[in-house]
Amino acid sequence: MAKPPVLTPQADDFPRWYQDVVAKAELGDNGPARGTQVIRPYGYAIWERMVAAVDERIKATGAQNVSFPLFIPQSYLTREAEHVEGFAPELAVVTMGGGKVLEEPLVVRPTSETVFGEFMAKWTDSWRDLPLLLNQWCNIVRWEMRPRLFLRSTEFLWQEGHTAHVDQADAAAYAHTILREVYEDFMVSELAIPVVVGRKTPDERFPGAINTMTCEAMMGDGKALQMGTSHELGQNFAKAFEITYQDSEGAQQLAWTTSWGVSTRMMGGLIMAHGDDAGLRLPPRIAPTQVVVLVVRDGDGVGERAHLLAEALRTAGVRVTVDDRTDVGFGRRATTWELKGVPVRIELGPRDLENEEATLVRRDQEGKATVPLSGLPQRVVGLMDEIQTSMLETARATRDDRTVDVGSVAEAIEAAATGFARLPWGLIDADALAALKAEAVTVRCLQAPDGAVATTDDDPDSVATVGRSY
Amino acid sequence: MAKPPVLTPQADDFPRWYQDVVAKAELGDNGPARGTQVIRPYGYAIWERMVAAVDERIKATGAQNVSFPLFIPQSYLTREAEHVEGFAPELAVVTMGGGKVLEEPLVVRPTSETVFGEFMAKWTDSWRDLPLLLNQWCNIVRWEMRPRLFLRSTEFLWQEGHTAHVDQADAAAYAHTILREVYEDFMVSELAIPVVVGRKTPDERFPGAINTMTCEAMMGDGKALQMGTSHELGQNFAKAFEITYQDSEGAQQLAWTTSWGVSTRMMGGLIMAHGDDAGLRLPPRIAPTQVVVLVVRDGDGVGERAHLLAEALRTAGVRVTVDDRTDVGFGRRATTWELKGVPVRIELGPRDLENEEATLVRRDQEGKATVPLSGLPQRVVGLMDEIQTSMLETARATRDDRTVDVGSVAEAIEAAATGFARLPWGLIDADALAALKAEAVTVRCLQAPDGAVATTDDDPDSVATVGRSY
Repeated sequence: MAKPPVLTPQADDFPRWYQDVVAKAELGDNGPARGTQVIRPYGYAIWERMVAAVDERIKATGAQNVSFPLFIPQSYLTREAEHVEGFAPELAVVTMGGGKVLEEPLVVRPTSETVFGEFMAKWTDSWRDLPLLLNQWCNIVRWEMRPRLFLRSTEFLWQEGHTAHVDQADAAAYAHTILREVYEDFMVSELAIPVVVGRKTPDERFPGAINTMTCEAMMGDGKALQMGTSHELGQNFAKAFEITYQDSEGAQQLAWTTSWGVSTRMMGGLIMAHGDDAGLRLPPRIAPTQVVVLVVRDGDGVGERAHLLAEALRTAGVRVTVDDRTDVGFGRRATTWELKGVPVRIELGPRDLENEEATLVRRDQEGKATVPLSGLPQRVVGLMDEIQTSMLETARATRDDRTVDVGSVAEAIEAAATGFARLPWGLIDADALAALKAEAVTVRCLQAPDGAVATTDDDPDSVATVGRSY
Repeated sequence: MAKPPVLTPQADDFPRWYQDVVAKAELGDNGPARGTQVIRPYGYAIWERMVAAVDERIKATGAQNVSFPLFIPQSYLTREAEHVEGFAPELAVVTMGGGKVLEEPLVVRPTSETVFGEFMAKWTDSWRDLPLLLNQWCNIVRWEMRPRLFLRSTEFLWQEGHTAHVDQADAAAYAHTILREVYEDFMVSELAIPVVVGRKTPDERFPGAINTMTCEAMMGDGKALQMGTSHELGQNFAKAFEITYQDSEGAQQLAWTTSWGVSTRMMGGLIMAHGDDAGLRLPPRIAPTQVVVLVVRDGDGVGERAHLLAEALRTAGVRVTVDDRTDVGFGRRATTWELKGVPVRIELGPRDLENEEATLVRRDQEGKATVPLSGLPQRVVGLMDEIQTSMLETARATRDDRTVDVGSVAEAIEAAATGFARLPWGLIDADALAALKAEAVTVRCLQAPDGAVATTDDDPDSVATVGRSY
């Protein structure tokens, strides 16, 4: 008798499948105030690993972490014209504090460009103070009318980097370093998610930026998810906040700034890039638990042996959990670990033990293997790398299969029903953009023909990747 | 000619000295909205080390991290009577969101007891789900009329743990574990700050708690700073939020909860417990930079040798920085590193190099020593432990010197002018409390005669430690 599926099948209703996974794998929940979210322990353990891996890469570029306030005086936001226009509809405003109506309302930060601007000005005197490379991990509020856990929520967690440089070239180079060496490298190496890295079109730029660059990933339903962005802000914020410095000849100069961020949105990307009908699938590097040792049935010292095996795995550097809740059915427990996406499951029962064997199940493949207990820890260590690589290859193959090179906007719209289309940017004029938009298709980014990030807005030979998106 | 002091001397004006250190060691700054704070890179690097060390200890007790929303519906706060009464005057309230006036205003969390309560109820079905041990690192807002950086600010960063247990004994034991194995151990072992650990009097209890326990440290001016608290909440929040569970016999039971927290206030404690007239003094375990290698004057390969030495120190596990900015005066640079409290300074000049020597300066002691370069890295490694131990011993001796056992409230008030007084709790009736209060002296905590945390409010033989406080 076939069991009813634990989750709505992806093919039936992908958004519903997503909701089911988030709930049943105990990743997150809706907060009590509309649009807010709760990140549950299992979800947060994944986020903590993301933070550690991104933070390490950010620090390697020379940036330092800081903490700026949650509340921003409303007047700050209005100092950069495009910026305030971009964020005005999304703001949450504190009007009461300490039992009194405030004289000047405080905005809950939708991003901290303006406060960073104020302090970067204060901390920058001479060219010796530059580049000033700062980053903060914090929460952000942008009022959200159609919230979805991790993807769009009124409050989310993120990292926002803000830097000041002596000239445009240095700012551009640093924004590019963050894009490639921090974001792309993290997404590919740790999350096993291949990303299309390119330049945003003027329509999709960050409010106040002169150039927005992005990492775009393909989700299981063929839609794009913007996973992270890095912006050149030109001198717009430097002008608004008077971020100036004395150059080596003693002349006063205006700095060039950048900003860049990734958020808990990457949790949504991780779920949707790898998940299948049985639930989450986590690449070993990001998995809080890499291996679960499942005691099939107790007796004959199986429990003790399971714990010994776990200890050996732990010593070998593997993150491991023992599930010896034999009062809960074996099938139900196996399903739960599948749902949670743990990369490797080792099943151990009395019969296995008799043969000095165990059953090994990879979450990224069908089937089971019988393996000798002897040498198993070392075998599992090797398997972690193998699964990590294999998951990236599978994700890349899937994405490439669903990406089509086309020669017209009509073909692009057709292809975007199931994936990405690539076509010359020269084919996309204002009418074409409108036609795409009518079908909820957008230009995700522009690349040079050799795959590099496009360096201008208007090269007709740039390759536009288009698709539907989250 | 004596140089003017970089900082206001402690003896002249301790609060002013504090402000000077925070500004000149580049630890923090005031945010643009009144009462908010900026934690600068050097300050944040210290905070990050505090977070890592506390988080590791919290996880060792079995707790898991989560993330709950910043915004709490106003109605939640009113569900526990004492709680809302305690926090009402300190709330920041969002009344506008997404361009509209909100139907129900949202409170910016002053603490998350109420949201945790709601979700702990949702996640607790059976006795098997307990204990439920949760923690979150986040920002908190409590409107502050007299803000002081790190000590009292409208927004601050903290960790708040919230747990649910099957009975009072288990809740009490866990609250005690957090107090001793997490907070006290962290403060003593990492911050080198001895703390008086005891029970708060009913007046000083957390709103809604049945027992608040505290770690109290003595600052350089003899005043007390509450460094961390752990609360037994009894069944007050469990009742208000219906945190119930089915016991092993199938009967419905009400859970017992705890909460506990430490905050960026510990930054203030670290500064004021160890700092002197030359600035900050950091214990090696918490110092972002443990050793600075100072190039006195360039030439004869001094710079190269300094970097080689730093590399050897790094390999030996020491956090080291090279200061080779020889275009800035040596004295000025030495003063800066003193101000920043770096535990060890190694000065290297051409003459030192000729003799294969260096000059070693400990921040925690007067004087300089000439040491051979050969074997220096290993010597420095040993020195890290030595300085850590020595700073704790010094802090303990200073505190003990300024703590007096007294036999009357009048004597206690006198002793509290310069430090702590200890006296029998039985001597402190309502009139005595009022007399203490009139002199800004409070009971910091109660201990049993053997030094354990007092277990009741009304044992006359409990020892009360009293003092002025931050």
